Amino acid sequence: MKFLKFISENQIKNGYYDGEKVIEIKNDILEYNDLNITNLKNELIKSYNINEIKIINPVNPSKIVCVGLNYKDHAEEMDLNLPLEPKIFIKPSTCVIGNNDKIIYPKTSKRVDYEGELAIIIGKKAKNVTQDIANKYIFGYSIINDVTARDLTIKDEQWTRGKSFDSFAPIGPFVQTEMNPLNQNIKVYLNDTIKQDSNTKNMIFSPYKLLEYISNIMTLYPGDVIATGTPSGVGPMNKNDIIKISIEDIGILTNELKED
Amino acid sequence: MKFLKFISENQIKNGYYDGEKVIEIKNDILEYNDLNITNLKNELIKSYNINEIKIINPVNPSKIVCVGLNYKDHAEEMDLNLPLEPKIFIKPSTCVIGNNDKIIYPKTSKRVDYEGELAIIIGKKAKNVTQDIANKYIFGYSIINDVTARDLTIKDEQWTRGKSFDSFAPIGPFVQTEMNPLNQNIKVYLNDTIKQDSNTKNMIFSPYKLLEYISNIMTLYPGDVIATGTPSGVGPMNKNDIIKISIEDIGILTNELKED
Repeated sequence: MKFLKFISENQIKNGYYDGEKVIEIKNDILEYNDLNITNLKNELIKSYNINEIKIINPVNPSKIVCVGLNYKDHAEEMDLNLPLEPKIFIKPSTCVIGNNDKIIYPKTSKRVDYEGELAIIIGKKAKNVTQDIANKYIFGYSIINDVTARDLTIKDEQWTRGKSFDSFAPIGPFVQTEMNPLNQNIKVYLNDTIKQDSNTKNMIFSPYKLLEYISNIMTLYPGDVIATGTPSGVGPMNKNDIIKISIEDIGILTNELKED
Repeated sequence: MKFLKFISENQIKNGYYDGEKVIEIKNDILEYNDLNITNLKNELIKSYNINEIKIINPVNPSKIVCVGLNYKDHAEEMDLNLPLEPKIFIKPSTCVIGNNDKIIYPKTSKRVDYEGELAIIIGKKAKNVTQDIANKYIFGYSIINDVTARDLTIKDEQWTRGKSFDSFAPIGPFVQTEMNPLNQNIKVYLNDTIKQDSNTKNMIFSPYKLLEYISNIMTLYPGDVIATGTPSGVGPMNKNDIIKISIEDIGILTNELKED
């Protein structure tokens, strides 16, 4: 199922996209974590043409935990050794925007990069979860752009400032609850030129391993997001550029960069 | 006013401490941001002896933005150059515990340090605020222990993991809404031995400057916390140690370290 949140008639609504129509459902998408489609069909309210609604961010995470250097090819292009453990940082919830929302270019940066990533969407409270049962705690997968003011992460050495500007975490358009996260093509297009082209099978630490690692540090709640790292090909965006991230079974996340 | 949240009769309640009694008030403490005590006196519900209630964390921040190296003496003891700009990192909301709650020693660390700090509690949504009017966006001040797994911050180079374990942000006991943040004695006692002894006037960047800097990166919401950095004298704690942080006009934040 491709779940989504959208605005129609000035209201935030929940639904899923069946490839043709967006079908409105009664409750918050996270409440369908344990339900199957049979249950869902008793809940349908109304259907919409996807062009007549405004898709918004599918979750409002209490935190976004991001992983640096989780693809071998990206570690190589950054001239960094392969990590023995995941290296984590946090983006605040104020970074979150949705599909087609604008990424705002901060006045204090001169280089803002895209980083296309697979996003894990947590479905159940997770603490000290082992990787063999991690799947039970995952609601589904989405796409995240881990937008990065590269000049500031380099200057500060700590990554937080350059990763934390408002609008620096586009998420969406859908949360896919039925897919194999271990073998998904991931491609990033800057103004329709392909810039990143990899597959999630090239991750150093799998989504399940990441959930184990992170949930042994901090409790994760439904709607929280783990950004699983970006493959090679990261690079700068300019104002008015359009950035698209495609993950095979999820869809395409599109955002434009705009001046502050 | 020293505002607080507490549990009594299995319910979370809001109140203030007048030095003798805890007086219960009707609404969440943050709603008193613009009210004066005259308004408050029309709202009183009931009073309690401070020993018969359980004080909890006074706010539930959506994020805690922390500042590294904001006292000259601490930069010197860490053998680091004085920063030209604040260096920030984020602790997730899952770190928050209250006065007298237990700090949990993570299995993955062999050195867990205390860091006593003044906490700014945001009162109004703040974005691109300048330091001259920063005071209008501050509800009050509390005490935070920026607990740090020092071995992991050194190993990772990124500070996030070592700062983000559940229970690593004790906050409280009170939010003081009437004090001068620029001249407060701050002292930290480990099992009653004094370890940190400084004054907020030794900060490199004032609370107002920090609010300007951070709100130009990310939007701050009521209840969000800025941890303003720690003075010299940081050091390790052992299991069963009791750590107390005293800030002159606020009170004393007490926590014990316990095994996971």
